[in-house]
Order: sequence, then structure tokens, then C-alpha cells
Amino acid sequence: MGVTAAGPSEEDAGAAGGTQSIAGVTAARAFDQATAVRRTTGGQYDMQPDPRFSPAAPSGDFQPAVNGGVLIAAMLRAVLDTSPHPHPVATSANFLRVPRIAPAQVVVTWLKQGKTAAVARTSLLQDDQLMIESTVATGSLAGDARDPVLPEAMQAAQALSWTAEPPSLPPVDECVPVEAGGGIRGQVDLRLDPATAGWMKRSPAGIPEMRGYFRLRDDRPPDAYLLAFAVDALPPVVFGLGAFGWAPTVELTWHMRAVPADGLLRVAARCRHVGGGWFDEEAEVWDSVGRLVAQSRQIARVGR
Amino acid sequence: MGVTAAGPSEEDAGAAGGTQSIAGVTAARAFDQATAVRRTTGGQYDMQPDPRFSPAAPSGDFQPAVNGGVLIAAMLRAVLDTSPHPHPVATSANFLRVPRIAPAQVVVTWLKQGKTAAVARTSLLQDDQLMIESTVATGSLAGDARDPVLPEAMQAAQALSWTAEPPSLPPVDECVPVEAGGGIRGQVDLRLDPATAGWMKRSPAGIPEMRGYFRLRDDRPPDAYLLAFAVDALPPVVFGLGAFGWAPTVELTWHMRAVPADGLLRVAARCRHVGGGWFDEEAEVWDSVGRLVAQSRQIARVGR
Repeated sequence: MGVTAAGPSEEDAGAAGGTQSIAGVTAARAFDQATAVRRTTGGQYDMQPDPRFSPAAPSGDFQPAVNGGVLIAAMLRAVLDTSPHPHPVATSANFLRVPRIAPAQVVVTWLKQGKTAAVARTSLLQDDQLMIESTVATGSLAGDARDPVLPEAMQAAQALSWTAEPPSLPPVDECVPVEAGGGIRGQVDLRLDPATAGWMKRSPAGIPEMRGYFRLRDDRPPDAYLLAFAVDALPPVVFGLGAFGWAPTVELTWHMRAVPADGLLRVAARCRHVGGGWFDEEAEVWDSVGRLVAQSRQIARVGR
Repeated sequence: MGVTAAGPSEEDAGAAGGTQSIAGVTAARAFDQATAVRRTTGGQYDMQPDPRFSPAAPSGDFQPAVNGGVLIAAMLRAVLDTSPHPHPVATSANFLRVPRIAPAQVVVTWLKQGKTAAVARTSLLQDDQLMIESTVATGSLAGDARDPVLPEAMQAAQALSWTAEPPSLPPVDECVPVEAGGGIRGQVDLRLDPATAGWMKRSPAGIPEMRGYFRLRDDRPPDAYLLAFAVDALPPVVFGLGAFGWAPTVELTWHMRAVPADGLLRVAARCRHVGGGWFDEEAEVWDSVGRLVAQSRQIARVGR
């Protein structure tokens, strides 16, 4: 079978602008290539970690590994390929081993397919060894077509709406661009709030926070897959404390809250506690029309 | 085999004060009974949801179900029984179906047993049907005995320490006690910040927040298991918006950050977005000596 970018939902990479026409040729963009999965005859999916999305150290060196959010995005493509619901509302992932730049397999097992939510267990394997174990709960979000026979009480619950204040960021032209470089720095156009960019000059702010505007350099529009990357795409918050080593994620959970509008994403990450070699990083992603579109928390090891 | 309260770590319910001597008889406290697991000859664990920990509605009615955090605590006992590391650092759970007040089985499968972290998949089943699917990453926390041959760079990462500001709560005697009643109200002594207690008089504050002091009425000391409950023990934050129905959790992830000291726990829960029938609830738990001991986020359905 051909490369499956997504299932039959509106997450479809085509509908979301995952492909673009260059000189009459339809070429998938880097992010869509890096997260593409191909269904095999056995009902599993093949994919390959793409070194264009390797994490970069402040020195410009990059790891022989791939950003966890990008790998999760690929796993989500496999999940949504057979999901009864369109959106990955809750995704939890345990990073057991560091996937190599080599062929990998994604296995999806549905644990529940309910009217409100469906839950799949999703595993990424290399040479039959489990690298990432994930569970994904899919569902509908506000704005999706509603069940025409929704009971009245359910309609009221569905209609309740409340949102907290968005993060405060200076205008984008007052932010500090992270220079292009190896790995994800060649893919991501990140403009950091100067208050959280001191680490770039080896003068960290002393606070584990990171805020900025995020888009891909080829301006691929945001969708669920890009949100999976966006929640893990900022430099680790502990760079703000001067801990510049590679900070491997042990567990990351993220929630999709709305379908993002086109345009720049605002990402704000904070930390609540660093200790015992562990730190947490909580990120929020807001879209260009001011909606909270994703939330995440990960627990990671302090870089050495 | 006898009732296994925990593995050979300091999480052992005995060491944590899970049992108390009454008139010369050692009697397990309600929470320890409700979360007890018994290893079977097949290497699985038996447990039974305990209606003393059923969630209570503002009306005083309670559901024929058991608080999700209490069920997770039982699953953690099974995980720690065979864990190479003492603490459940990261626990993610998907609530697929509502467990009945009937016998249940807990199955633990180790996916990785590493030096820094071990990861287990843990399932709670009734009549061979999957009710809760969970992954647990165990590890060491600050203050645990350290590897005597820890390399220097690793020691520096281990020593880095930073903590955010704790939540602001009025003194406990200015807080509003939640009356004893059916289900968990008979077990939990909860004193709510008056700013988040208006819903008790059907006059919700209009903000989805909940803060208060938490302990069990029998004063069982906090440990990892009680933290699993504490992150899910406050009334749903959407009570603050007047949504008083039962709010079923779809997914909950929590992180243990430190071993809690004895005494009252402070729990602060907030929400960032309600929409499309979904709401998030983020809780922090701080111990009596001012340490952040647990963090959680859950995504749940707005009650009808």
C-alpha cells in the first residue's frame, strides 16, 4: 500500500496542507515525510525515524536520535488510520529506549471503541524491541459535527465553555530567532521570548521557563500531528538553569483541546520542580486565533 | 499468599503507617483495605473496589463506582511488589469502563527494567474485560540512597534543585470543611479554601478551581498510594462552574516528585479549558514541610 499520511478524518495530511505543489509536482513536506507510516499486509505500520528532526544541543551538535514528539506524531497517524473518532484527545507515551535512525514498526491495538472515546495501545518497535509504548484516547472536539439526537442534558455539558488566560509573549518581532542548524533547528522556526533566551548566550535566566512562537520553516499548517511535535519542540526548560545536556524524556502526556487555525503557534513551557535528577516540563500551545489547542506535561532526566 | 500491601520498598504500607494497632490488634485502615491486592498463584493480583471510596455528588448521593485514584493506588501496589525501583515516578491511566463493586484482577507486565527507570504496563480487569489500562514508570527520588559509583557528571545532574512557588491557601481553620457523608466523604477530611467552596451552597465561584487541605479522617500518613488518591480526591473543578454532574475521568497522569512528610497535604487544582464536553484538571499536592510531592493532569467529561 501507499504511504498513509492519516485516516479518513479531517486530520488527513492532505486536507491539513501536509503536501504542497512545487512546479507541478506534489511533494510531501519534511514533517510529513518524517511522520509518514506505511500500512503493511500484516495490519502493522512501517516508519523510519528521520534525522532531520534530531534534537540539537546549544553547541549545535545533535543527537543520533529523533525528537519524541515527531515519533509520537507518526504513531498518531497509525492510530487515526483506524480510529472511529477524528482527534487524539489524550496521548500518553513512555520512552523506553532511544529509537535508532533505522526502520521501525508501529503496532496499534484497540482497547475500547466507545461513542465518546476510543482508546488504542500503540507501540513503536525496532528489531522486535519495544522503544515507545503509548496509549491514545481519541474523541471529538468542540466544533465537530454533533450527534443530531444528542440528549438535552448532554447538549448542555457539550456547550459549557471556559478558557484560562493565554501566556504573555512579546510581539514576534521582539523575539529572538533560534538560528538554523543541524537536526530540528533546520526545520523549526522558533522565536523565543527574550526573557527565556539567555541560555543562547550561555547566560541562562535562572528560571526553568521557555516561551516562543513556533512554526515549521516550510510553513506547513498546524494540525494534530504538528501539535504532537510542538509540545516537545522547545529547548528543555532546564536550559534556563544552565543544564545544557541532552534531557531524555521518560514519560510525556499531551491533550489536544481544539483544531488549530493556520498561522504561528505560541508555545509556553514551565517547570514546577527539579530534583533527584528529574524535572517536569508543562507546555501549552495556543493558536493564531487565541485558542488553547494543546497541553502537555513530561517528566525527563536532567541532562548531564 | 497473604494480602500484599506493597513490595520490599519504603512504600511498604507497614512502614508508612498503613496499619495501626487497636487494643492490641493490628487492623488495616480503610484506605489500605480498599487498595490491598493479593497475589495469586498465577502471578496476578486480586483486589475488590471498595464502596467506602465511591465519589459523592453535591446532593450527597454517590455513584456505584470507586474513585479512580484509589483504584490506581491498588494497581501501584501490584507494580511496586515487583519493581526494581521504589517510587511510582510517572503513572498514566486510561479509564475504559467503570469498575463495578465486584472482584477484579490486576495484571502487571514489565516493559523495561533499567537502572534509572523501569516501566510496567498494568491492567485492571473484571470478568476478563479491561476496565483500566495504565503504564507506570518507577524510579528513585531525591533523598533515596544513591549509587556509590555515580559518575561526577551524573552527580551534578542529580544535585540540581529548583521548585516553584507553592499554592496560596488560607490557614486551615479559615477553610470550609466538607461534611462527612456517603462514599469518600466518610473517609476524607477536606477543608476547602472559601474562595473555591461556593458550590457547596449552590453558589459556585464561576472559576474552575479547587483548593484545600487533605487528610484521611483516620489520619493515615501520606505515601505514594495516598498521593495517587490525593491528586483525584477533590471535587471536580467544574463544580466551580456549576456543572454538578458526575465527571468521569477518561485519562489521568500523575507524577510523584518527593516522598511526603507526615501531616496535612495541600492540594490545589485548576483547569485551563472547558469545551466540547471535555475539561482538564491539573492538581498539585504539597506536603506539610512545603515540598511539591505530586502533580497530575486529567481529562474528563463534563458532568450531565
